[in-house]
Amino acid sequence: MDRMAYAAARATIGDSEFDRDTAVVARPDEPGTYDIDLSPGWTIIQAVNGGYLLAVVGRALRDALPHDDPFTITAHYLTASQPGPAVIRTETVRAGRTLSSGQASLYQTDAEGRETERIRVIAAYGDLGALPDDVRTSATPPVMPGYADCVGSEDAPEGSGPVPGSTAILDRLDLRLDPATAGWAIGAPSGAGDMRGWLGLADGRDHDALSVLLAVDALPPTAFDLGLKGWVPTVELTVHLRCRPAPGPLRVALTTRNLAGGLLEEDAQVWDSADRLVAQSRQLARALLA
Amino acid sequence: MDRMAYAAARATIGDSEFDRDTAVVARPDEPGTYDIDLSPGWTIIQAVNGGYLLAVVGRALRDALPHDDPFTITAHYLTASQPGPAVIRTETVRAGRTLSSGQASLYQTDAEGRETERIRVIAAYGDLGALPDDVRTSATPPVMPGYADCVGSEDAPEGSGPVPGSTAILDRLDLRLDPATAGWAIGAPSGAGDMRGWLGLADGRDHDALSVLLAVDALPPTAFDLGLKGWVPTVELTVHLRCRPAPGPLRVALTTRNLAGGLLEEDAQVWDSADRLVAQSRQLARALLA
Repeated sequence: MDRMAYAAARATIGDSEFDRDTAVVARPDEPGTYDIDLSPGWTIIQAVNGGYLLAVVGRALRDALPHDDPFTITAHYLTASQPGPAVIRTETVRAGRTLSSGQASLYQTDAEGRETERIRVIAAYGDLGALPDDVRTSATPPVMPGYADCVGSEDAPEGSGPVPGSTAILDRLDLRLDPATAGWAIGAPSGAGDMRGWLGLADGRDHDALSVLLAVDALPPTAFDLGLKGWVPTVELTVHLRCRPAPGPLRVALTTRNLAGGLLEEDAQVWDSADRLVAQSRQLARALLA
Repeated sequence: MDRMAYAAARATIGDSEFDRDTAVVARPDEPGTYDIDLSPGWTIIQAVNGGYLLAVVGRALRDALPHDDPFTITAHYLTASQPGPAVIRTETVRAGRTLSSGQASLYQTDAEGRETERIRVIAAYGDLGALPDDVRTSATPPVMPGYADCVGSEDAPEGSGPVPGSTAILDRLDLRLDPATAGWAIGAPSGAGDMRGWLGLADGRDHDALSVLLAVDALPPTAFDLGLKGWVPTVELTVHLRCRPAPGPLRVALTTRNLAGGLLEEDAQVWDSADRLVAQSRQLARALLA
C-alpha cells in the first residue's frame, strides 16, 4: 500500500476498533450505570486484557465525571473477566473545579444469575489540555532501536514463547519489541526484568488518553524476561497520565526490580513521538508457576 | 542514657505514640465502622500528615479484613483533614484465601453537622509472613551516609527551610536526612528531585507494616530539592508493602523525575536494616506556588 492509501485507510480516534470495543452505553433510567459488551478481540489466552478493561471503565468514568482525562486511576482486579456482557456502575465521589474523583466497578452475571464484581476502580480526572505547559522532566526516553529494527510477533518462530494459544489481542496491536527484551521467545530471556517496545494500534488509530490505559498493560510481562513462564495476574494497577500523547506509536518501557515472595512490581513509562513522558504506571502482580 | 536504660525506655510495637494515635475503636452496633481521634501530633503546619492518615485507615482495614498486611493500598486525598474526631467506614469487597480486598473512607463532621469525606482508600490485604521466601531483587539500597552522618532537624539553622511554623510531626519522628538532599534547608537545593533519610520513630518503637504506611510520606517533599517552596498536596498515594520490616530505622529514598503541568510523581523505596526492599510507593501531587 502506498503512503497515501495507507493514510486514507487509517482509523481515527472515535472511529476505530478500540473505540467500538470500549463503547459503553448509558442506561437512561439509571444515572451513572453503563452496559458494555466486552470484546473477545482483546484477550490473551482466555483472559480479557487488564489494560483493555481499565480503558472500558475509564471511558465510563469519563462520561460520568465532569472532566475527561484520568490523571490517576487505580484498578483492583478481583475476578477474571470473560468476553461478553458486563455492567459498570460509577459513583461521583467529588466534583471539583480542576479535579473530580470517581469510583466504578464492573460486574458480570454468571449462568446462575449471580452478579460478580470483576474490577473496582478509583480515579481522579482533570483536563490535561488545561494544565500549565511547564515541563521539568529529568527522566529520559528508553534507549531502544527504532520501530523498523524492533521485532513483531510475525518474526517469532512458530509455537515459540511461553504463551502459545489464542492471543487475539496481538491482531489489534501494532507491537514491536526491542530484540534485547524478546529473547524469552526463543528460550533466552535476559534475566534483567525488562520489556520495551513500540506500541501502536493495528488499524492505525493514534493514541489518546484512554488508549494509554491499554498501553501500560499491553506488552508481554517482564516476568518472561526474568525466565518465568506462567501467568502473571495483576492484583492492582495504577496509571498516572501526564499529558495527551502526540500522534504516532508510543514507546513503552517496563521494568521489574523486586520479584520476591511470589509477587512483583511492574513499572511502565510511556513516551510519545514528541519525547514527552505521557504516563507512568505501576502494577503489583502475582508470579504463578507454569 | 546508657544502652540498657535506652533499651528499657524504648516503646514497643503495640505500646507507643504511633499505636495510641492510630487506635481505631469499632462501633459495636455498626460492623465495619470505626471511630478515631486524629492526633495533632502528626501535623505539618496545619495539615494532618497523609501517611499518618493512611496508617489510621489501614489499621481499620486490618481489623475489618481477614488478613493483616496491606500488600497494596491506594488513597485518594479528597479534602484536608483536621486533628480531632473522625469516623472510618469500611467495606469488605472480597475475602479470599490468600488475599482479601477492602475499601474504606474517613469522614469528619463540620460545625454545621455536615459530614465530609477526607480520604478514600482501596486495598488488598494478605499475610506477609505466609509468602514464600524467594527474593530476586535487583534494586539496590540507596547510596547514602550512615545514620550518624545524616542531619536531623536540630541541625538546621533557626527558621531555615521553606516550611517555618508548626511541625509537630518532627517531634514524633527520628528523621535524619542525607546532607546531599538537605541543601534546601539553607537555600541550596540540589535540583535533582531527591530526598533520602533514615527514619525511625522518636520513642524508639520499631517499624511494622502500618508504620511503613507513615514512612513513605514522612520525609520533606522532593519538591524542596527541586527548589519549589510551596505546599505539595497529595492527590493519590499507592503503597506496595513487600515484607515485614526488620528492627531498626528504615532508609527511605524519594525521587521525582517528572515535574510537568503543575503535577509531579514522588516515588519512595523503603529499605530495612536487613537490606530488604520493604516497600515501594508512588504518589501524584500538585506543585503549588509558595
